[in-house]
Amino acid sequence: MLKDDGTMLLSKLLGERYKEKPADASIPSHIFMLKGGYIRQVGNGIYSMLMPTKRIVNKIENIIREEMDAIDGQEVLFPVVLPRELWDESGRYESVGSELVRFHDRSGGDYVLGMTHEEAAVHLARNEAQSYAKYPFMIYQIQTKFRDEPRSRGGLIRVREFTMKDAYSFHTSQEDLERYYDICHKAYERIFERVGLPEVISVGSDSGMMGGAVAHEFMLLCDAGEDTIVTCDSCGYKANMEVAEGVLDKVEAQPAEIKKVHTPGANTIDALVDCLGVPAERMIKATMFAVEGSKRVVLVFVRADLEVNEAKLKRVIGANIFPLVDTEGIDLTFGYCGPYNLKADGVEVYYDRSIEGANDMVSGANEVDYHYTGLSVGRDFQPERYIDVAKVKEGAKCCNCGAPLKLNRGVEVGNIFQLGTKYTESMQMVYTDQDGKQQTPIMGCYGIGVGRLAACIIESHHDDYGPIWPYAVAPWQIHICALSNKKMDVQPIARELYDKLSKNYEVILDDRGANAGVQFADADLLGVPIRIVVSVKNIENGEVEISTRDKSIQTKVKLEDIEAEIAKIVAQIQ
Amino acid sequence: MLKDDGTMLLSKLLGERYKEKPADASIPSHIFMLKGGYIRQVGNGIYSMLMPTKRIVNKIENIIREEMDAIDGQEVLFPVVLPRELWDESGRYESVGSELVRFHDRSGGDYVLGMTHEEAAVHLARNEAQSYAKYPFMIYQIQTKFRDEPRSRGGLIRVREFTMKDAYSFHTSQEDLERYYDICHKAYERIFERVGLPEVISVGSDSGMMGGAVAHEFMLLCDAGEDTIVTCDSCGYKANMEVAEGVLDKVEAQPAEIKKVHTPGANTIDALVDCLGVPAERMIKATMFAVEGSKRVVLVFVRADLEVNEAKLKRVIGANIFPLVDTEGIDLTFGYCGPYNLKADGVEVYYDRSIEGANDMVSGANEVDYHYTGLSVGRDFQPERYIDVAKVKEGAKCCNCGAPLKLNRGVEVGNIFQLGTKYTESMQMVYTDQDGKQQTPIMGCYGIGVGRLAACIIESHHDDYGPIWPYAVAPWQIHICALSNKKMDVQPIARELYDKLSKNYEVILDDRGANAGVQFADADLLGVPIRIVVSVKNIENGEVEISTRDKSIQTKVKLEDIEAEIAKIVAQIQ
Repeated sequence: MLKDDGTMLLSKLLGERYKEKPADASIPSHIFMLKGGYIRQVGNGIYSMLMPTKRIVNKIENIIREEMDAIDGQEVLFPVVLPRELWDESGRYESVGSELVRFHDRSGGDYVLGMTHEEAAVHLARNEAQSYAKYPFMIYQIQTKFRDEPRSRGGLIRVREFTMKDAYSFHTSQEDLERYYDICHKAYERIFERVGLPEVISVGSDSGMMGGAVAHEFMLLCDAGEDTIVTCDSCGYKANMEVAEGVLDKVEAQPAEIKKVHTPGANTIDALVDCLGVPAERMIKATMFAVEGSKRVVLVFVRADLEVNEAKLKRVIGANIFPLVDTEGIDLTFGYCGPYNLKADGVEVYYDRSIEGANDMVSGANEVDYHYTGLSVGRDFQPERYIDVAKVKEGAKCCNCGAPLKLNRGVEVGNIFQLGTKYTESMQMVYTDQDGKQQTPIMGCYGIGVGRLAACIIESHHDDYGPIWPYAVAPWQIHICALSNKKMDVQPIARELYDKLSKNYEVILDDRGANAGVQFADADLLGVPIRIVVSVKNIENGEVEISTRDKSIQTKVKLEDIEAEIAKIVAQIQ
Repeated sequence: MLKDDGTMLLSKLLGERYKEKPADASIPSHIFMLKGGYIRQVGNGIYSMLMPTKRIVNKIENIIREEMDAIDGQEVLFPVVLPRELWDESGRYESVGSELVRFHDRSGGDYVLGMTHEEAAVHLARNEAQSYAKYPFMIYQIQTKFRDEPRSRGGLIRVREFTMKDAYSFHTSQEDLERYYDICHKAYERIFERVGLPEVISVGSDSGMMGGAVAHEFMLLCDAGEDTIVTCDSCGYKANMEVAEGVLDKVEAQPAEIKKVHTPGANTIDALVDCLGVPAERMIKATMFAVEGSKRVVLVFVRADLEVNEAKLKRVIGANIFPLVDTEGIDLTFGYCGPYNLKADGVEVYYDRSIEGANDMVSGANEVDYHYTGLSVGRDFQPERYIDVAKVKEGAKCCNCGAPLKLNRGVEVGNIFQLGTKYTESMQMVYTDQDGKQQTPIMGCYGIGVGRLAACIIESHHDDYGPIWPYAVAPWQIHICALSNKKMDVQPIARELYDKLSKNYEVILDDRGANAGVQFADADLLGVPIRIVVSVKNIENGEVEISTRDKSIQTKVKLEDIEAEIAKIVAQIQ
């Protein structure tokens, strides 16, 4: 029977738990969310959340809400379904690719599913904030979004449908935006600390399709990450690979004589290293890109042990780029392209600063099966300028302090952007300033993915058996196991305990009468911070066992002392 | 400057308030939600909610959540975007019309926007509840839905995108479903009472496209309603017009002789009444319908002062019907169709019970410009059976007690359905019973529209100047107006009061220095239950004025007694 008093009995909890590792999961949060009955897939990158996850997510949302309210955020709600007209105004109906879902309504009108809400925020604010006196202000929502990711993966780490807190602030000066941006940065630090992830770091990042100049991502460094974060242990420099800078030691070499050498079939760097016995850092590599929406072709020369950082190159080009696939009609000797004696009509050529001043380099001779050796950059060809478009390499020197840089994997759990006037200008939002003049407001925006944050908490807090939920976000606070045997049924005692503790705590009771192994395995998967085991042996001494999910506390307590002991433990772990 | 302490100053509240009645709004909730800066339209039937609405909605959601948890509901979250496959399983991908939004993802997969989540609920539950021991259980969510209504109207009363609490229960017997259905009915009563709408009534209703047998709608009777509710003051009978039954007095008349009369151009009932001088209740009217997805044509004869109830007829037919538009190829004399000497090959003919045994009736002669008079039903033509497909007329007799029925307009704020096995059977959900046999679970479902409920609270609680929010759902609990004059600036005193009261209440402070008229008009539009007016005159006596939004309390209080007085008022109005 369903109880009508709101109690939570494990026998009734929907969401089967199982022992086997799910076949299609490889990272801890995905594995445990499936094994523990937290989520179930409905479609590609689309999940239903079961009760434990929803409880966790509600707590995370409330923490976020408190922190947003504390920095004067006004909670609002924008629609999931947005008319095309709004996205036409910002230009993103055209500029955003197929991650934006577009569809028609019954009368043929064009709509999109909101994947971010800058347009909706400006639409709402522009009629309501026409005087300077209203500024600054921040509005935020916690709402479902849909982004048609080509590669959803890892359970809640990268999905197509997700719940997000997105906030938008409006200002009358860049200084005020920067002031509030810092306030919001601190609020984010508090949020991550309160949900149990004080180790989240903020790194400089690319603003990507959002536009704007300054941006930070909040990253949890962990193996499940698909972003690369460059860090310096010495001075604390941190940046997403997309924007990270490093300083490379020059490869010392004396100027040499140019020679054209026969390198049959060596049209890759690896083959060339084998063929000539010269290391890749003594070579110049050519990489080609197409520019989206145009016939422009971009050729980049970079030291051959480095990779071109597409995010950096995009910013240089000012448009989306893709690796060149269709080479028809392009007058380059693919596989043997080099900067010396280059003919590249109609191709834009860029030189990465990694090759500046290098001597005795190898590069393509613009002739199939031939390379030059002994090239000196500046002597044999003269780039007009050098740009920074290479990915930072592990061990490169920090641009601040010179110490060696580290590469780490990280998951983005939040981001903040100084958007500037990209949306307010294109959507013609104005206010009247103190002198009666019309001005364009300056915007910031601030996001946190709620479900991904829940998954990241598992990435950071788990053992071999399941999640170890921090007290502030745990689905329940106390988990009672009742271990009866043939001699004695301890259920009534466990139930009494349950009733008593439920007055002050969120308690779940394992009422199934299963054996200890099953009960403990399930308790581990549910990851509730405090566990009370009611066993026949201990009850005979008037005691129960209390332990924490992380095993740091394990103690026997007299029945009459339980509440005091729990209060003590909560004070310790909260 | 944005304050960093979470205070709410009216000067910063986004959402302009204005005096003019909005041109496109006619019902109180729509008018006040626009005038008061509560909502802004983004598209047809699509709104953004500003802070006051979001705060109200959050409070309503929490009340709903508490009541759902109290009847052992497990909160979950289903996706907004659902793969077509789920809706194919239930058959609704085909059977539901264009109110279901269908679209493709980037790889061409078919998806829908969830307008209801029976499919998602069964999808989630069917792998997690395979043993009888798990039953019964109820899962619910509070989530965004999109229903492509052809006629959205009235602000939040009828929208296309809305937030809904939808719950789904699963049972092993019809008795258990009925037991839980009653529990849920009571929970709904508590919810409506707690949000300030104890006057909501539950009425028997049609289960429509949800399927299932027994259903109730929770209705707020008010002028804004577009449903018609039939009520009996004498015995308490209540039903939606869609299912309501009434008993009609027979029109007393002696049998007469059939005559064919010339009625040129009288192809409507009104024209015929004029032409013959006979009242409509002495006539038989023919109404034609097309059956969706077929070539079937349905002809219904009903007493001419009554209308055909399409919901009832749908249930008789077992399919969707529409008023017949395309008459090509149908062998009926439109405008002059009658039951006597009728030739209606290929047409299905039904007779409403309102004409049973009637004498001396007028009806079409199946010949243009001619009618019969003097028809006796049963003598001149013999229906095989009579069915009940007429709409109840005001004053018809209650089928329970015989008292006259009333027609009322009402808005549906919630509904509950006994679904039976429609979804569990079509989606092949089974569990193993105590005897090891496979059984199909029996479902109930239970919905509440959150935004519509907020609008209905205004419909029920407002005066000429704005909403009068019940304490439990008010956006703030106390509204402080500060009326300075040239002599004295009372802002510091108001601010002190604000700081003091904010510790225990949700307070908004009008810090704009506007004149009393503007401040009071805005306070009326925000509808906060308790108002404190700090004016120079009263402050000089060490007093402020406290009043309730509904004007039932209006009193002057010494500054030092404010907290005690507020506590007293809250106890009274809560």
